[in-house]
Amino acid sequence: MATGRGLGVGLIGTGYMGKCHALAWNAVAPTFGDVARPRLVHLAESSADLAERKAGELGFEKASGDWRRLVEDPEVDIVSVTTPNAFHAEMAIAALDAGKHVWCEKPMATALADAEAMLGAAEKSGRVTALGYNYIQNPATRHMKALIEAGAIGTVNHVRFEMDEDFMADGTAPFGWKSQKESGYGALDDFGVHPLSLLHVLVGPVTEVIADCAMPYPTRPAAGGRAVETHDIANILIHAGAVSGSILLNRSAWGRKGRIAVQVFGSEGTLAYDQERMNEIQIYEARGPLAGQGFRTILTGTVHPPYDKFIPAPGHGLGFNDLKVIEAREILKKIAGEPAHLIDFSAGIAIERAVHAMARSFAERAWVRV
Amino acid sequence: MATGRGLGVGLIGTGYMGKCHALAWNAVAPTFGDVARPRLVHLAESSADLAERKAGELGFEKASGDWRRLVEDPEVDIVSVTTPNAFHAEMAIAALDAGKHVWCEKPMATALADAEAMLGAAEKSGRVTALGYNYIQNPATRHMKALIEAGAIGTVNHVRFEMDEDFMADGTAPFGWKSQKESGYGALDDFGVHPLSLLHVLVGPVTEVIADCAMPYPTRPAAGGRAVETHDIANILIHAGAVSGSILLNRSAWGRKGRIAVQVFGSEGTLAYDQERMNEIQIYEARGPLAGQGFRTILTGTVHPPYDKFIPAPGHGLGFNDLKVIEAREILKKIAGEPAHLIDFSAGIAIERAVHAMARSFAERAWVRV
Amino acid sequence: MATGRGLGVGLIGTGYMGKCHALAWNAVAPTFGDVARPRLVHLAESSADLAERKAGELGFEKASGDWRRLVEDPEVDIVSVTTPNAFHAEMAIAALDAGKHVWCEKPMATALADAEAMLGAAEKSGRVTALGYNYIQNPATRHMKALIEAGAIGTVNHVRFEMDEDFMADGTAPFGWKSQKESGYGALDDFGVHPLSLLHVLVGPVTEVIADCAMPYPTRPAAGGRAVETHDIANILIHAGAVSGSILLNRSAWGRKGRIAVQVFGSEGTLAYDQERMNEIQIYEARGPLAGQGFRTILTGTVHPPYDKFIPAPGHGLGFNDLKVIEAREILKKIAGEPAHLIDFSAGIAIERAVHAMARSFAERAWVRV
Amino acid sequence: MATGRGLGVGLIGTGYMGKCHALAWNAVAPTFGDVARPRLVHLAESSADLAERKAGELGFEKASGDWRRLVEDPEVDIVSVTTPNAFHAEMAIAALDAGKHVWCEKPMATALADAEAMLGAAEKSGRVTALGYNYIQNPATRHMKALIEAGAIGTVNHVRFEMDEDFMADGTAPFGWKSQKESGYGALDDFGVHPLSLLHVLVGPVTEVIADCAMPYPTRPAAGGRAVETHDIANILIHAGAVSGSILLNRSAWGRKGRIAVQVFGSEGTLAYDQERMNEIQIYEARGPLAGQGFRTILTGTVHPPYDKFIPAPGHGLGFNDLKVIEAREILKKIAGEPAHLIDFSAGIAIERAVHAMARSFAERAWVRV
Repeated sequence: MATGRGLGVGLIGTGYMGKCHALAWNAVAPTFGDVARPRLVHLAESSADLAERKAGELGFEKASGDWRRLVEDPEVDIVSVTTPNAFHAEMAIAALDAGKHVWCEKPMATALADAEAMLGAAEKSGRVTALGYNYIQNPATRHMKALIEAGAIGTVNHVRFEMDEDFMADGTAPFGWKSQKESGYGALDDFGVHPLSLLHVLVGPVTEVIADCAMPYPTRPAAGGRAVETHDIANILIHAGAVSGSILLNRSAWGRKGRIAVQVFGSEGTLAYDQERMNEIQIYEARGPLAGQGFRTILTGTVHPPYDKFIPAPGHGLGFNDLKVIEAREILKKIAGEPAHLIDFSAGIAIERAVHAMARSFAERAWVRV
Repeated sequence: MATGRGLGVGLIGTGYMGKCHALAWNAVAPTFGDVARPRLVHLAESSADLAERKAGELGFEKASGDWRRLVEDPEVDIVSVTTPNAFHAEMAIAALDAGKHVWCEKPMATALADAEAMLGAAEKSGRVTALGYNYIQNPATRHMKALIEAGAIGTVNHVRFEMDEDFMADGTAPFGWKSQKESGYGALDDFGVHPLSLLHVLVGPVTEVIADCAMPYPTRPAAGGRAVETHDIANILIHAGAVSGSILLNRSAWGRKGRIAVQVFGSEGTLAYDQERMNEIQIYEARGPLAGQGFRTILTGTVHPPYDKFIPAPGHGLGFNDLKVIEAREILKKIAGEPAHLIDFSAGIAIERAVHAMARSFAERAWVRV
Repeated sequence: MATGRGLGVGLIGTGYMGKCHALAWNAVAPTFGDVARPRLVHLAESSADLAERKAGELGFEKASGDWRRLVEDPEVDIVSVTTPNAFHAEMAIAALDAGKHVWCEKPMATALADAEAMLGAAEKSGRVTALGYNYIQNPATRHMKALIEAGAIGTVNHVRFEMDEDFMADGTAPFGWKSQKESGYGALDDFGVHPLSLLHVLVGPVTEVIADCAMPYPTRPAAGGRAVETHDIANILIHAGAVSGSILLNRSAWGRKGRIAVQVFGSEGTLAYDQERMNEIQIYEARGPLAGQGFRTILTGTVHPPYDKFIPAPGHGLGFNDLKVIEAREILKKIAGEPAHLIDFSAGIAIERAVHAMARSFAERAWVRV
Repeated sequence: MATGRGLGVGLIGTGYMGKCHALAWNAVAPTFGDVARPRLVHLAESSADLAERKAGELGFEKASGDWRRLVEDPEVDIVSVTTPNAFHAEMAIAALDAGKHVWCEKPMATALADAEAMLGAAEKSGRVTALGYNYIQNPATRHMKALIEAGAIGTVNHVRFEMDEDFMADGTAPFGWKSQKESGYGALDDFGVHPLSLLHVLVGPVTEVIADCAMPYPTRPAAGGRAVETHDIANILIHAGAVSGSILLNRSAWGRKGRIAVQVFGSEGTLAYDQERMNEIQIYEARGPLAGQGFRTILTGTVHPPYDKFIPAPGHGLGFNDLKVIEAREILKKIAGEPAHLIDFSAGIAIERAVHAMARSFAERAWVRV
């Protein structure tokens, strides 16, 4: 393990999340100023050529067309797994078995059994694991958590989550991979894990669900038209212990681009947030004269850590990619043995189980306990 | 029946909705300028004294402590029924039997059988009936309907409704009537009928439901604490034919004062609306260059009828009470044999049935067909 | 003077503001429930026929084609003057001289000398006068005033006003009356009086100004094109004692329909308001932990008088026309010798003087003291 | 000059903007993927120790306590000047004289003569110069520019700019450097250059101004209280050729954290933007049926370059720091001889001249031509 110098990083996959990890590993030291600069040691892609080209672009020292060589590289201390979900389990387990820490994109796996195996490998290895649930890293959502814990809205009794985008909204676009059952259930897992990660952090795990899924376009254009196999819409009523709520998901919602709308209702107030305005939270506190009560829009700023590490003035706006830099810092903290704000494989399993319970609930048209 | 002059109005009840009816009957002729001024003939309240006082305030000629005298008054052509829900059926049926038109506040009745009896009386009498679903009268929601019918958002495939207020949000307030089962199910019927009226008008009737209800405060302060019997929160997943959706209701939602948030998703766009900003609708149309697409906030104005009857300049804002004036005008149209935009007892029954199906679904923890 | 029964009302003019006065006189008693119902005695229009027809529509007993007969009618106690601005002075003075109270639409007159004469007549008569500055009647703006007076934002040090509509925004529309100098200066007086009325109430009178006016369309379509004589845009920097600020006016602002945006900055906070969302105010109070500070959106409700006289639930929305009902109630208060929230002819003169100082400042390209 | 490999970067100053430049130089290659990775060659700070420490944090190879050594370093191709404004001129001129490209933070200098000297050095050297006006790099403001150029809002006739923050809003905070005249005029130059940069890019240079400045707190706490020498508030009416407008500046505006509100009015529409919601623009286009017109909120996305280089999904949000990465890419373009979107020293002089004309206008209480 590298000491006295930066951690050695290996990156598998260079799609969007791969690039995002690379940017985060590049930025974490200059942004935070309190950690050794990670060394970008090894990059793996599906071919040696592509790996070589991406290593140049992203600033990695070595490149391989075979991810197993990266996993075995003694200079690599932590492996970023950013490949398609179906590959997560094999890669993460191999990395853990080789004694590496693992930063894996969400969800853990397509099958619950694979996710369980990943957790097993993590427990056996004792290494740090982290899932890429970056929305929980936003200073805005962190402040929501802090407010809830400080009792600002009293006891939470109800929650609502919506997650909507419109990349599947065009019913005239050709049948594609996201409409094949091999890609998963549809909105249920594709989107569901994100609200679940926020719910997990803000309130706790889901205990009971009833789900309904819908296909806005039962067929999509192909030769002769092709039956869609996934559900672009999913609605779930939930219980999370004594807290009731709903999770509404729609990836065919025209006009929604990155909406993750959260409402948390408590005995003394309400919190609201929308990822499309990711630097704002809203809070209503049922205190003081009624004539003065209202939803307060808090713009994140230097008093909402770690915003201050990015910009020294409030209200200037973090971006989506900055969340990954914060995530990288949390992983470095955890590796250093400090408390960290992360969803590791152990917490991640609760999210995967909830998704699979929802799928079963839809199939059986009945309430299912998680 | 009055001819050549204004219709004779009878008003039973002078609580908020009674006052609102009286204001509407006062304002409908000067506002619209195309109808004979209704004559405020007869007002009934629970005592002769109260009736007398209110008749003076609201401008009615006669006053009775017994509503049956009003119903029998030959000068009365139409009866406004604005008493508590439990009295609607008896009064409406008596008025219809006496040959009067009836404008009755929603919901029709507390028991489904009573509502069915009201419909029976209406059909037998041939008189005009109207339920006070005033939100459908808003030029904003009417424009949404017009846009949907014109295909602005293509084929509707999904809907979301939220209705939230906070009058039950204070768990430290004393146990009151709204927490007794005699008042109904709770949010399910107290709030549910409003989104259902909008859904009915915008999309059509609900066909299948699964409901979950919750009590944010299982007990409320009384001597020794008293168990709450109604559910201040209700969440319902729905099907309305091929359209899927959700109705989320919360009357203990701190900070929400008159929120009725609507989202209608279609194959070519999305509509959104919130009653707290009742003069605005939002539309996303998936047309033209992608770089220019976005939600457009339309402020209602003189081109959104009948806004122009109230104010000759756009964007100046109608109020809640104005909606009732529009409703009164629609009733006068219907009485005159013209097409009118109203939920009559026949359409109203569909709403009542949906509410009762939701209640059954919650009790049985299962999907229920309406 | 009528005693023991409602005040006798005379209405001159039945354009928008005439109708608005009529609706207010109709609604004031049932809405407030604490005043005798005004009697709609006499209506005057430019012809006897029109007067007759409008009297029927609006509910007036008598009709005249000559406003002088109305002014002399002994049954009339108060005269609503809602004719074009050029007629205000003659009518208001005649009514005052005849011992009537006067409710006159703003501005007072087109020439400052006429306004001064109106004030003279008012002082001589001792009757109640009121100018139709209805925006100051909004429970939202009243609450802003209350907050300022209670010190919620500390000492006011700066203000910004914007008033924008788009009825002159179409440069391809034919040359019309609003482009003729006979109509006034343009945005400067057409719009300027509204922000000035709010400024007057919230902060105090303007003491020094520098103005700039602009013509977005120097010519407008007519045979051969016609030179525009008024300025659709006006910007004014102001001092109101120690408070600095700006008033920006644009009646050719595409998309703005009824925008009157107000920002009031103080030593301990900021207030903001926009008439297009007339049921909301925003306040930032620099108190408590910085991490929790933000602009709070207060929806007007029953705790913001006299909202409660219109609707018994908060957040349901007043409309523009409701403001006129409140204004009518204030006038009745003042006539009854009670304290009232009104801009009378005496306060109105300050607004007229400010407008004329702005016009001079623009002509001279220099600061002008009011 | 480095060829076949990344440009050599020298960084003078490591305050916020220094860090921001370092992050940008780190991120530009992995983000854009089409440029050679710049080499972080040399960092200079006020002491060797500080330089050494910061070089480690920010990833620079060499460190100096004397910026002149950096300027002379043959491995350095471009110098980032991020020191206090008073040092810009000397450093930038030395770098240009040494044949380096210069990326200098705004404003150019505290005295106009210094800015003119900088321009002279730039012209003599033939090197690339760029000022750090990062707000013009936002895909949102770039899209506004593209829309204006495409005629989306017709001919621009009026503009409004507001820039507000609250770091000087607390009148009880001790007298500090920003209240000393050595720091400049106050809001006029501290803030004014930002709206001017946007105005310059969107509309063109200012030609005539009248300015008013104000001190919300004439004295601030110190021993015995100390007279403030700068103006935290500045309002300016402007002409930019045929376009009229206003620039309102307030650095004591409680609650505003990073507000730069822009309104651009044209003959066929209106554009609006607020930096506090930096991923959104609003456009009203006066086209199509009036009933459907409204302000459209466009969330920036992959179709608004170069957003796509950061995130492959729309609506996910860029942050303030990302703007600097775009700026770095533009500089690399310009060095490579490609067209670039930048404010160089030549364009920057127009902004500096406008600021100084405003200051003179305030002193003379008169309109001043730029």
